[in-house]
Amino acid sequence: MNRFLDLADLSREEVVDLLALAQRLQDHPEPEALAGKVLGLLFFNPSLRTLSSFQAGMARLGGRSFVVTPGNGTWKLETRTGVRMDGDCAEHIREGIPVLASYCDALGIRAFADGRDLAADLAEETFSAMAALCDKPLVNLESAMNHPCQALADWKTLDDLSVPRRGKFVLSWVNHPRALPLAVPAATLHMAAHRGMDVVVLRPDGYALPPELMDKARRAAAASGGSIAETDDRSQALAGAQVLYAKEWGSPRHYGEAEADAALRRGLADWTVREEWFSRAAPGCRFMHCLPVRRNVAVADEVLDGPRSVVLREAHNRMVVQMAVLHRLLAR
Amino acid sequence: MNRFLDLADLSREEVVDLLALAQRLQDHPEPEALAGKVLGLLFFNPSLRTLSSFQAGMARLGGRSFVVTPGNGTWKLETRTGVRMDGDCAEHIREGIPVLASYCDALGIRAFADGRDLAADLAEETFSAMAALCDKPLVNLESAMNHPCQALADWKTLDDLSVPRRGKFVLSWVNHPRALPLAVPAATLHMAAHRGMDVVVLRPDGYALPPELMDKARRAAAASGGSIAETDDRSQALAGAQVLYAKEWGSPRHYGEAEADAALRRGLADWTVREEWFSRAAPGCRFMHCLPVRRNVAVADEVLDGPRSVVLREAHNRMVVQMAVLHRLLAR
Amino acid sequence: MNRFLDLADLSREEVVDLLALAQRLQDHPEPEALAGKVLGLLFFNPSLRTLSSFQAGMARLGGRSFVVTPGNGTWKLETRTGVRMDGDCAEHIREGIPVLASYCDALGIRAFADGRDLAADLAEETFSAMAALCDKPLVNLESAMNHPCQALADWKTLDDLSVPRRGKFVLSWVNHPRALPLAVPAATLHMAAHRGMDVVVLRPDGYALPPELMDKARRAAAASGGSIAETDDRSQALAGAQVLYAKEWGSPRHYGEAEADAALRRGLADWTVREEWFSRAAPGCRFMHCLPVRRNVAVADEVLDGPRSVVLREAHNRMVVQMAVLHRLLAR
Repeated sequence: MNRFLDLADLSREEVVDLLALAQRLQDHPEPEALAGKVLGLLFFNPSLRTLSSFQAGMARLGGRSFVVTPGNGTWKLETRTGVRMDGDCAEHIREGIPVLASYCDALGIRAFADGRDLAADLAEETFSAMAALCDKPLVNLESAMNHPCQALADWKTLDDLSVPRRGKFVLSWVNHPRALPLAVPAATLHMAAHRGMDVVVLRPDGYALPPELMDKARRAAAASGGSIAETDDRSQALAGAQVLYAKEWGSPRHYGEAEADAALRRGLADWTVREEWFSRAAPGCRFMHCLPVRRNVAVADEVLDGPRSVVLREAHNRMVVQMAVLHRLLAR
Repeated sequence: MNRFLDLADLSREEVVDLLALAQRLQDHPEPEALAGKVLGLLFFNPSLRTLSSFQAGMARLGGRSFVVTPGNGTWKLETRTGVRMDGDCAEHIREGIPVLASYCDALGIRAFADGRDLAADLAEETFSAMAALCDKPLVNLESAMNHPCQALADWKTLDDLSVPRRGKFVLSWVNHPRALPLAVPAATLHMAAHRGMDVVVLRPDGYALPPELMDKARRAAAASGGSIAETDDRSQALAGAQVLYAKEWGSPRHYGEAEADAALRRGLADWTVREEWFSRAAPGCRFMHCLPVRRNVAVADEVLDGPRSVVLREAHNRMVVQMAVLHRLLAR
Repeated sequence: MNRFLDLADLSREEVVDLLALAQRLQDHPEPEALAGKVLGLLFFNPSLRTLSSFQAGMARLGGRSFVVTPGNGTWKLETRTGVRMDGDCAEHIREGIPVLASYCDALGIRAFADGRDLAADLAEETFSAMAALCDKPLVNLESAMNHPCQALADWKTLDDLSVPRRGKFVLSWVNHPRALPLAVPAATLHMAAHRGMDVVVLRPDGYALPPELMDKARRAAAASGGSIAETDDRSQALAGAQVLYAKEWGSPRHYGEAEADAALRRGLADWTVREEWFSRAAPGCRFMHCLPVRRNVAVADEVLDGPRSVVLREAHNRMVVQMAVLHRLLAR
């Protein structure tokens, strides 16, 4: 494995193998496996889990990391090609990325969606341009439409909790003050399909995921024996569900139009996950969320603080699975 | 030892033991003692000494660190319970703290006083809420009313300089452009009392420390054989003093009222430590300050640059004693 | 070697020796050479290459680093002496530098020119004040008039590419939206002279380098058998050139006068390096730049993306030569 950019690049069996490695490293730590190795972490956007879990995981394998945050101690980086750089970017990714790559053994990059042009973001134009400039092992720390480290951690969490392969997995839109990117819903939807689950996307009118993302998930479901459905009927969606995965995202219908999106969500204040949502779910239905989460906007305290929430395990598994990814990319 | 939150949690003998460990690690370095261990450092407020000395100290023991600064590369963290999070905080400490704790072997947290409600700050409401969420060894990197690492470093500095246990220790209020927190005066007062010194708090009218802090120090003095007094008479306070410890703090009488505090300190411009202050002190009276310090506001150049100043030794001892704390918390 | 502040502190032979060490460490890595050593990195200004290459290089030698950025997570540091510190700086370098030095085995400091008083900047007043406060091995990470790590990396790049010692080296002013410091042109000019090259400074009227910098380079050229010339005639300058080193800098004639400088450069939009510049150059003339560079302002895409550009090799060599510097400063 030379890059970890999209869980879809791995077959179901390869994912299972990678998770087995994660478990092995938990059971039998290898504190010198990456001795002498250096990981560069390039963050165009804020982070808590990714920032800290990659540094901690690298350290637990004996390696070291450095962090670069353009615009904060480091020059802003231009991503557009062919432009006359007389604005606020002092450096271009065409220099910045190869230079950083030349200092490290593997590079991780976080670059959220621009959020203006849905087609460009679906095509991963920005991240792909950076990936093409990196000649070292590369990790996607969240791009416009993907978050494979989160997806892999969530898959492990489902395994840890013995959620059946064909269990019913509901990905539900939830409320937020602003339109958020599609990276996590896209990655989560695909992950659950790739695992072979029966996936239902629950979302209000206007928040259906783009057909490109639904189609990718359908292909994964077909290969793994799962299924994909979508609905705006909460009661139907949650009937018998084993997992409710909540996520905030902006309206694809009004992509990049903050006011239209805000108008649309004005009537959606009841899309805050509460205990009553689970009345028709399977006993023991789990609540998942990638974090960060806004309490009492996306999900009520009663759910996050109750026994069905597994958000802390998901977050901890970020470090666990990323150690396996780093091991696969860098260990001799 | 599982937490290092308040020097008052340790008996005098336990402090002496901890300082002996610090000295032992200076004399006989243990560069592999914390191999494979990871320290997380969470800073809600700025830092120079704490930020660098913990990273350097951890490295000198073979361990590694990562730094998280909410609002600067990381989401702002909400600390209030039960709120609807539709403001500028994207994550709650109820998630953030356990997640960070799950990545590391020990966590350090700096969270200054809110500075609005004296009772809440005296109760350490914010820091206690975070401490309750951390299931790993925890270090207080300065809270509303405490700074135990500074206090421990200062105790060692007094020992290094052979300041007698029953020496006269003057904690003096000094000038500053703004009202600063009570953490260091509180920790310093208690430390000197805990060490068994004869402590005098020298402060102008309006700047008496809250009775809760004075009472805590009196209890420590009673246990250690020291004494506590307070006065606004500089000449009397400094008569025979072996140590003058200068510190800026806001008026507890006008807590959270910036304008009233500013009005009060308008007449206090002569509370800048100068050499003439020491005319009645013991020969060789030392000048101490935790840093950062505003030259020629809190203390004149002539004092800081003269032979009685030991501020650099205090700062260096931060790393020395913190290595002992980390060793006690994390070494097998 | 106890400090690395200026390439002029080393004889030509000492530079050659240092580059031989850099090559040796490339060919025969020493992953434990600096085990247990701690490097402090103090950045008063932004950085990408320096920030990441020092951390990566230190890690590759087994050592560890911490980063401090005044005003960003750390107090702003006052550099003026004798002032009453009632402004926005909470700490003075007279405390800050010795404290940081006391935590580490070597300290690196970046402090760009103040850009107001040319004589003060030529005298390196700020950096020298900080250097005088540091009792540990010290590295100049770019000061008002120097950037020795860049100069050393560029020297190695010239060697790597077998550019002859007496080759013609053209340092050319190029366009930029703002007046930039003189550090890199000063260091580059001196480096090429020190190496023994025939150096031509190509710059428009108003951008001649200060006589102090030209004289220093002339002394180096005299010692090494090279030569120094300057001109505003691009065609003449580039005739037979083996290297074109492009750099942006502010007008020394209007030092600290942003508007006068801007007026002067309004007529200089054609000072963007293009392929046509090289028509009279030697075959294989190289294009060099220290980065960051503004594409299509300082240099056209066609040059940066073409075969004559060696900017990525220069940047990679930063890490390579800095490892030699760290090894020389810190290895037993």
